[in-house]
Amino acid sequence: MVKARSSIALVLFIMFLCVSSSYQTKKKQHKPCKQLVLYFHDVVYNGNNAANATSSMVAARQGINLTNLGNQFHFGSMVIFDDPITLDNNFHSKPIGRAQGMYFYDTKNTFTAWLGFSFTFNSTDHQGTINFIGADPLMNKTREISVVGGTGDFFMHRGIATLMTDSFESEVYFRLRVDINFYECW
Amino acid sequence: MVKARSSIALVLFIMFLCVSSSYQTKKKQHKPCKQLVLYFHDVVYNGNNAANATSSMVAARQGINLTNLGNQFHFGSMVIFDDPITLDNNFHSKPIGRAQGMYFYDTKNTFTAWLGFSFTFNSTDHQGTINFIGADPLMNKTREISVVGGTGDFFMHRGIATLMTDSFESEVYFRLRVDINFYECW
Amino acid sequence: MVKARSSIALVLFIMFLCVSSSYQTKKKQHKPCKQLVLYFHDVVYNGNNAANATSSMVAARQGINLTNLGNQFHFGSMVIFDDPITLDNNFHSKPIGRAQGMYFYDTKNTFTAWLGFSFTFNSTDHQGTINFIGADPLMNKTREISVVGGTGDFFMHRGIATLMTDSFESEVYFRLRVDINFYECW
Repeated sequence: MVKARSSIALVLFIMFLCVSSSYQTKKKQHKPCKQLVLYFHDVVYNGNNAANATSSMVAARQGINLTNLGNQFHFGSMVIFDDPITLDNNFHSKPIGRAQGMYFYDTKNTFTAWLGFSFTFNSTDHQGTINFIGADPLMNKTREISVVGGTGDFFMHRGIATLMTDSFESEVYFRLRVDINFYECW
Repeated sequence: MVKARSSIALVLFIMFLCVSSSYQTKKKQHKPCKQLVLYFHDVVYNGNNAANATSSMVAARQGINLTNLGNQFHFGSMVIFDDPITLDNNFHSKPIGRAQGMYFYDTKNTFTAWLGFSFTFNSTDHQGTINFIGADPLMNKTREISVVGGTGDFFMHRGIATLMTDSFESEVYFRLRVDINFYECW
Repeated sequence: MVKARSSIALVLFIMFLCVSSSYQTKKKQHKPCKQLVLYFHDVVYNGNNAANATSSMVAARQGINLTNLGNQFHFGSMVIFDDPITLDNNFHSKPIGRAQGMYFYDTKNTFTAWLGFSFTFNSTDHQGTINFIGADPLMNKTREISVVGGTGDFFMHRGIATLMTDSFESEVYFRLRVDINFYECW
């Protein structure tokens, strides 16, 4: 009789273990499954730097010349870019990929932007792409955008990218540091 | 002997429970894990309302003036916005965040738009961002777009946002009600 | 005593099964849970084909006329489209949906584009939308972009879309074949 009871207790305990371990799989991990720190470099076309420019304004509010970022805070100005990605903060380091996409300024009374772009890699370091969208309140020290998907080495990955302005030289050059934390890795 | 058999039956039953409960974790929940109902308000710049405008046309087909939405159905017209988000449908309520991004009209023979934008929050109600993309066939009573990611309180969230045009005053003001259902909450 | 030991062994084995089967649910499937092969057709407005055109340039670098794709490699040129989707590669087949969104050229020394668009369906074949973003190095035979979300039949789906240029006639018509592999189906 005692044995039977302990058997039942054990069985219930196992059932509890099974169910609880199953439920644990529903809890998502907040610890990154992969991390990258990269830099990218944007040289905005200003009418005189066609050879070096990596980006260009292509749209703006009525009456604004596309060779300068125009009105205060640049509200409405859209830039398309193809920027080199490097492993360190040196513009002259060998690029390991390209940051390709767009950003546009979207506030009237401060500097904020909205970003839609991809990192494209085709090197020994990485193969494939990482796709990003999100809001960039660029006066903040750090800003977080979404990694919404990827291909190749980053097949189906999702995560968060933290942007930091690493350098800013008037309105011609800026460099962003991007800390990518993937939380869904496949 | 009877006891041994019932033990085995029990063991098999437990195994079944374990396996089935594990498989259940694969089945995704179609019940929202979080819900929000919010409103945002868009005042389009028309050349005369610079102080009040929250959005502006920045691109359009050849020959179209950017201070009016131009040709019938506005095909090709792109608008960048920074709209207040409120908890109710009153334009004068205290904003709890900003809807920042773009939409563009993309059909020749009816009104449809495509949206890419973020909700940005920095208040006691919410902290962080929610990122959206999707098609908006705006003559329909309800339209569904994707919540593709988030940060802060909405870390890694995914879901569906249902848009409803709550008010539309000629081509200067519209208000959208957004019912956000998150199905992946982390 | 022997019986007790075998009981314990069995119990341990069941516990192992429970835990291992739970962990298996964490491993993501790299086998598609749903697949689609579709075509879409883009007729770019060139100033003379307003009736047939399905897309139009709406933004470009300073000084470029929006009725031609402009400078070499079209860097900075943005196109908004509403293209018919067909089940085969025949432009005249009955459309089963629309591809609606934008692309823009984003390299100075080759042809690459960035895409943000939706497939919208409202037919007996499919109901709902699929949302895409990603980089399109269009000189490559195949390119992969992200499926970041969906609605209706494609509720919360994620996956990878492989693009192939199926036809290209000067700068007025192109046809893309899209192989969509969903890896997250709900």
